[in-house]
Amino acid sequence: MSIPAIGHGEPAHAGAADVSALSRGLGARGVPVRIAHAVHASGGSAADLVDVRGWLQALNAQLRTDTDIVALDRLSGWHHDPGAGTIAHHSGKFFTVEGLRVGLPGNVVPEWDQPIINQPEVGLLGIIVRESGGVLHCLMQAKAEPGNRNGVQLSPTVQATRSNYTGVHGGKPVPYLDHFADSTRHRVVADVLQSEQGAWFLHKRNRNMVIEVREEVPLEAGFRWIPVGLLHRLLAVEDLVNMDTRTVLSCLPFSTSGLPGEFESSGSGFATALLRSGDEDWGCLHSTRDVLSWLTDVRAGSQISRERVPLADLSEWRRTERAIVHRTGRFFEVIGVNVRATGREVAQWSQPMFAAVGTGLVAFLVRRVYGVLHILVQLRSEPGLAGVAELAPTVQCTPDTYPHVPSLLRPHFLDDVLDAPSENIRFDTVLSDEGGRFYHTRSRHLIVETDQAHEHPNYRWMTCHQLSSLLQHSDYVNVQARSLVACLRSLAVPGGPRG
Amino acid sequence: MSIPAIGHGEPAHAGAADVSALSRGLGARGVPVRIAHAVHASGGSAADLVDVRGWLQALNAQLRTDTDIVALDRLSGWHHDPGAGTIAHHSGKFFTVEGLRVGLPGNVVPEWDQPIINQPEVGLLGIIVRESGGVLHCLMQAKAEPGNRNGVQLSPTVQATRSNYTGVHGGKPVPYLDHFADSTRHRVVADVLQSEQGAWFLHKRNRNMVIEVREEVPLEAGFRWIPVGLLHRLLAVEDLVNMDTRTVLSCLPFSTSGLPGEFESSGSGFATALLRSGDEDWGCLHSTRDVLSWLTDVRAGSQISRERVPLADLSEWRRTERAIVHRTGRFFEVIGVNVRATGREVAQWSQPMFAAVGTGLVAFLVRRVYGVLHILVQLRSEPGLAGVAELAPTVQCTPDTYPHVPSLLRPHFLDDVLDAPSENIRFDTVLSDEGGRFYHTRSRHLIVETDQAHEHPNYRWMTCHQLSSLLQHSDYVNVQARSLVACLRSLAVPGGPRG
Repeated sequence: MSIPAIGHGEPAHAGAADVSALSRGLGARGVPVRIAHAVHASGGSAADLVDVRGWLQALNAQLRTDTDIVALDRLSGWHHDPGAGTIAHHSGKFFTVEGLRVGLPGNVVPEWDQPIINQPEVGLLGIIVRESGGVLHCLMQAKAEPGNRNGVQLSPTVQATRSNYTGVHGGKPVPYLDHFADSTRHRVVADVLQSEQGAWFLHKRNRNMVIEVREEVPLEAGFRWIPVGLLHRLLAVEDLVNMDTRTVLSCLPFSTSGLPGEFESSGSGFATALLRSGDEDWGCLHSTRDVLSWLTDVRAGSQISRERVPLADLSEWRRTERAIVHRTGRFFEVIGVNVRATGREVAQWSQPMFAAVGTGLVAFLVRRVYGVLHILVQLRSEPGLAGVAELAPTVQCTPDTYPHVPSLLRPHFLDDVLDAPSENIRFDTVLSDEGGRFYHTRSRHLIVETDQAHEHPNYRWMTCHQLSSLLQHSDYVNVQARSLVACLRSLAVPGGPRG
Repeated sequence: MSIPAIGHGEPAHAGAADVSALSRGLGARGVPVRIAHAVHASGGSAADLVDVRGWLQALNAQLRTDTDIVALDRLSGWHHDPGAGTIAHHSGKFFTVEGLRVGLPGNVVPEWDQPIINQPEVGLLGIIVRESGGVLHCLMQAKAEPGNRNGVQLSPTVQATRSNYTGVHGGKPVPYLDHFADSTRHRVVADVLQSEQGAWFLHKRNRNMVIEVREEVPLEAGFRWIPVGLLHRLLAVEDLVNMDTRTVLSCLPFSTSGLPGEFESSGSGFATALLRSGDEDWGCLHSTRDVLSWLTDVRAGSQISRERVPLADLSEWRRTERAIVHRTGRFFEVIGVNVRATGREVAQWSQPMFAAVGTGLVAFLVRRVYGVLHILVQLRSEPGLAGVAELAPTVQCTPDTYPHVPSLLRPHFLDDVLDAPSENIRFDTVLSDEGGRFYHTRSRHLIVETDQAHEHPNYRWMTCHQLSSLLQHSDYVNVQARSLVACLRSLAVPGGPRG
């Protein structure tokens, strides 16, 4: 199966001689078609799946990370600054844990205090892709993070904080970083600043980047080329594809318009409805103009207030010798860990981490509307988001929290996804949060099909094409929804979880 | 000449019965075509121009605003708070004038201090449009602002801070505000938060909104329906169309694809190249993907630092009895004014204002590339922008500042626009900054055609379609560039300045 030939996007003035050359020079339509084709064409076999898992298991011994929980007071290099009321590194680098007082009028909980991570630097999450044998491959890294419960997971080619690559750690150089330093050398497939968890990070953004190289790239130890379709299929394996990979994958173009005929199925199956959802020409229930207006309205009217308070003064939170915990024991804890690692830039360090209490749930309700799959997205305000409110999963919560509270507080649509009959469940896998900051913190990823035309002022039905268009820009789609977008796309891969 | 009939964008599930209805339900492509058609079809006659100017002159007597400069220390209701180091209103509302210390490594001036306006609330700039006799009309207001040097200017239907419409002023209700309160009643043509002057406002955004109504709207005193094409032609009149109107107009869709044949000119004139520039199908020199990547790169690597310092501690600035001024007398002054107004919500008040020293210059260099007009845009970092860097005019400066400094600091392309032969000047009008905060502050708006293929790492050639697409989102195009986008579009209006 051949990949449609598309020029490499050089500006037209570099050699073209007429107006049509200017249009072709764009490449703007070329990239999405080619990527979408690659995703939908290269799912790989069951043997390929087994092979990648075997490779990761073998590396688990070499890339060992031993993480011990220690008292927060006794973290080497970190101290509680009583003046600032924060936990900080003695270098002033990396990140701080701070106290935040949040006011969100109109929310079911209109004000609360919480610890939050303040890490103002922009990290890089970058995947190198390359065509080989007619198939687009992603250069993936087996990476162990201290918060991972299972050792190594599949990570982007580069997953680095600014501290990593500017040498604050005093560690080894970051492999393949130079490929991203001058992106003009390559074809940029995706390049956008995206938010991190708005409940746990204050105004944190990472650069999500996919570049396509044409030249040979030497393979370093712990790295592997994986077909982009197979990578999507691996999302169905528990705790295997890490959060950073999932957010980068979500930024790949979804468009399927212009795909070869075999993808423009006239069938009535779920995968057909999904493919149509990625194609602008199939239409959508609410125009993007109206969705943006809804978002503008909420942002313009937002009365959110965010005030820094010392950690010691946080209402409802108390500090034990071991950790900072909520009075009820719910939500999350701030803990300290000592890490001994092999195969990383730095062999040993200590750091605070956030540890969620209970397994989270992120879920999309999806529905076929005239044969086009639509996703029910929520417009959700979170204290750490620079844009205040972003599009979020239909359900995003920790279900264990809710038996204890009045049903008034029970999240909308929680029961619709938890009680769905098994034949309506399209995706159901527990996947890890980012293991560099979050300890054994995981969320069940659920995609549930419904035939109910739910309506709610804080929710809209949107297509994959609409979400994908907004994912070219910052501050529209939160990290939990991005993770689910990658999972949803995997359902269009032949041989995928329920494909 | 008939306007193409387009459905009103109801969601398809409201009654449609097949897949094609879902696509049509969108209206996503319908709105731009219709608006572009209206702009390019309804320039009006010379008599219409004279008529609007006569109306404004007549209103100048009724809507009189007398503004007296008074000592900053003696502003009624405002005080210098020595603890916070700011100038604030006793109510804590409206805005404060604060001191900012800016670090911008790599800039020709890598650090400086300055006063800045902190007004965290989101204002509304809204224009109501309505079709009448086959022509789209804008409901415009003749509004006098204390900073205007010429009394009334043409203002959006609603131009209101949150303080205005939540009654902090204790003044009269804002006319037509209710039309914008529930935008679902109307067709939304544009609705986006846009930044204000990043050199003078800290993180200020206004909601730029255009709604199309179908029902009759009663005309209040001081308001007038003006055809959208005529409104664009009025941009060629000095100090007539105010800044708020210009930024809202810039958010109108530019797309001309699908216009009736008469607009798809095969000629070789400037207007033809401009119309093609608004049409995605004609292509562009750099793909939007590459432009966004360039922006992401600059934002991700930005080392800008912003620190609040008390006004009294600002280096190089001193406080006289009258004002806060720079040691050199350049840049701008913070002054105080007493205002007596007729025909406004509040009859009398005092406030601080910024007064620029010298007339500013904002200029686009434009060039035909294979018959498609391209604009040379700058990626410019400004201390008050939430997004750090936005697309800006080719030249944005106060030319008087530069005879006094070494030529190293002279802005790029300044001489290209100032020394351009008159036959290459497509637009040249002095227009006012927003008169609610800025006193007698004006910029010469210049659009100059060149045949030089200038290249510079901080600049890119972009089409109108590309800018227009980005203008659907926040934080991409700064207010000076938006003002020029409206002026550029006026050149496509038959009978326009150089049309």
